[in-house]
Amino acid sequence: MANQERILQDIEVLRRITEPCACGTQRPSYTPEYRRAVDYVKGRMEEFGLKTREDNAGNLYGVLAGSQEDAPKILSGSHLDSVKCSGAYDGIAGVLCALEAARMVAESGRPLRHPLEVMGTIGEEGTRFGQALIGSQLVEGSWGEAQLDAFRGLEDGLTLREAMQAYGLPGSTKGVCRRNEQVKAFVELHDEQGPILENEGVSIGVVENIVAISWMHIKVKGLASHPGTIPMSMRHDACVGACKLICAATDYAREHYDGEATVTAGKLEVFPGNTNCIPSQCKFTIDIRTCNGDYRDDLVRFIQEKKARVEEECRVSIEVCEGMRQSPTALNPKVQQCIEEACKKLGYSWRRMNSGAGHDAMIFARIWPAAMVFVQSHNGLTHHPDEYVPPKELAKGADVLYETFRLLDAQPDE
Amino acid sequence: MANQERILQDIEVLRRITEPCACGTQRPSYTPEYRRAVDYVKGRMEEFGLKTREDNAGNLYGVLAGSQEDAPKILSGSHLDSVKCSGAYDGIAGVLCALEAARMVAESGRPLRHPLEVMGTIGEEGTRFGQALIGSQLVEGSWGEAQLDAFRGLEDGLTLREAMQAYGLPGSTKGVCRRNEQVKAFVELHDEQGPILENEGVSIGVVENIVAISWMHIKVKGLASHPGTIPMSMRHDACVGACKLICAATDYAREHYDGEATVTAGKLEVFPGNTNCIPSQCKFTIDIRTCNGDYRDDLVRFIQEKKARVEEECRVSIEVCEGMRQSPTALNPKVQQCIEEACKKLGYSWRRMNSGAGHDAMIFARIWPAAMVFVQSHNGLTHHPDEYVPPKELAKGADVLYETFRLLDAQPDE
Repeated sequence: MANQERILQDIEVLRRITEPCACGTQRPSYTPEYRRAVDYVKGRMEEFGLKTREDNAGNLYGVLAGSQEDAPKILSGSHLDSVKCSGAYDGIAGVLCALEAARMVAESGRPLRHPLEVMGTIGEEGTRFGQALIGSQLVEGSWGEAQLDAFRGLEDGLTLREAMQAYGLPGSTKGVCRRNEQVKAFVELHDEQGPILENEGVSIGVVENIVAISWMHIKVKGLASHPGTIPMSMRHDACVGACKLICAATDYAREHYDGEATVTAGKLEVFPGNTNCIPSQCKFTIDIRTCNGDYRDDLVRFIQEKKARVEEECRVSIEVCEGMRQSPTALNPKVQQCIEEACKKLGYSWRRMNSGAGHDAMIFARIWPAAMVFVQSHNGLTHHPDEYVPPKELAKGADVLYETFRLLDAQPDE
Repeated sequence: MANQERILQDIEVLRRITEPCACGTQRPSYTPEYRRAVDYVKGRMEEFGLKTREDNAGNLYGVLAGSQEDAPKILSGSHLDSVKCSGAYDGIAGVLCALEAARMVAESGRPLRHPLEVMGTIGEEGTRFGQALIGSQLVEGSWGEAQLDAFRGLEDGLTLREAMQAYGLPGSTKGVCRRNEQVKAFVELHDEQGPILENEGVSIGVVENIVAISWMHIKVKGLASHPGTIPMSMRHDACVGACKLICAATDYAREHYDGEATVTAGKLEVFPGNTNCIPSQCKFTIDIRTCNGDYRDDLVRFIQEKKARVEEECRVSIEVCEGMRQSPTALNPKVQQCIEEACKKLGYSWRRMNSGAGHDAMIFARIWPAAMVFVQSHNGLTHHPDEYVPPKELAKGADVLYETFRLLDAQPDE
């Protein structure tokens, strides 16, 4: 069985590898803190006999050799980066439970036939570049050289290529893409980031689908002026325009798609940002998520329609730019079945569910048999310093990964 | 008559004394850039024989001696600080036109009987400390030592006292208060910051009243979490709460008090500010202005009432803190009469009007006979890099100040 203390020790070390921030852990990709985290995990992999490497994107790999050298690899892991002021489990738990399962294999004296590769991907969160799933999309191959110059850091303005170079990588995608590689399966463990497992007292979530995600970057342009001298009806107030659009979009989602789709404005900036100045500009993001493509289309249509009404009502102009558009993803039924078998064997409760969050698994599902294991999130908290997965639930997750690898390993290769 | 080129030269020099910013002029109080602006104006004062000094608050004074040394001073000026990304006239025009009028007196060969003091006040805008009218309130005396420790820089966290010390002042209010000084009059020239004078083709505004101003600092507290895993109806979204309150307050002001009162949310920040995170906190400011105290009371009441409804609807908690509360101010009728006489004598068109903006004059009106002269603002633009006063209108303003000083000078002292 999994060694709970060993997982927790790694969690606590990584929790403290953070940029200075108001609270929690903050570890954007391609930063000195990210490097320290990679070095720590790499060291832990090597302690237990995994052969490590980093690709040009900054993804970390550690391979535990199998008895059949040319057998396709079993892959498992998640991401090592975080949002701002984040918790210690999102992504990290998936890397560390995969590492623990690999340690369990190594210590069992019964090597797998297939090589087992533990992965720590980079840039899964959109924190630094406003673009998520960077490492996995470069591995999957729908991103390449072009994206290295196309995206810039939201705060420092560096291109992705420049950020990679500043981090010590060559600034190239050479050797990163693995789409032609035969892979047995990719299994990603993640905390649920929602309240369902805990509320129902269930330990393991077997994920069937991952939601569609759209990100919209919205810029409202008005006219700055003095707050006391321009009558309310003659203003071009960019902040009021943004507020109206956000209220309308979130109200519409709550009224029509509660529990089925979400609309979130997570990032918002007002310019010039003086108490005594009518705002000239307001930039914000809208995140839309749903497993139903029709709901997404209707939400995007509603926002476009409402945009025109707000432009007229608030005498502003509004640019809407779609920044990301991921379709819903069905995960691999055979790998899901192995996860369920593992839960049965271990006597752990489980349920089928969808994921409201995007994950590297949805990218890898395009090229490999991919599946996900969810563990409980206390109070559904995530992207929050108080994110918490009970240690025994983490250990159960590592046990499920271990048994799943054994079951996959026993299956003939296609 | 006023020398238009001389005023413009000073305007253009001060326009370029700015912190690095996206556009326009940005010169918060107690910064190296503010020091450079003071040094420039001080030098110009001294060139024309004014005797200069700075008080411990950082206010700049330049006195042109009168023929009767013990006669009460005639004061004129405005502020030298700016909001972020501001224009080149707000405040500055009042200092430079007063300086030009003093130069006209000096060059006329006919000294005034009263000493004429040109003032450049500090901290009139609330940019740095979230508190406006710092210099004038320290002179007027309703602020003292306590305020130096009570207020902190919104960005750097320094107390007002620490900021003063870092700027090179002793960090004390000693000698700043002038409330016991006999003063003939304080006359402040300012650009209108609204469209009325230009729309009507009138050159000079004679200000009767200055609006009441209330600033509210509002903090909405929710709960950060993942945007895809928490159903819309179960969220505690701080940004949506803030947007609802801003929409409600601005709609209410437009529907009930258009042209009579204004409500502006000029500064707004969302935390933690990730695209993929439900915001845990949103801080914003509300600026309320009206000449009618009942309207203000009704707007404050409405915001408090709506706050309770938003707390329930959005499952958030909201703190409302009144940051500033200025009553409407009636300016001195006798000084207004002198300004009108000056306009008549010069053949310049004028009208009576109210000021929708707060000014140092409303603070000095508590202790001295105070009045204001408005000049045109092109398109009513202000707190904006494109703020513009036509040069001939600036010169007319300086002419009106000069003639007003002559008329005041001819009146017997009470």
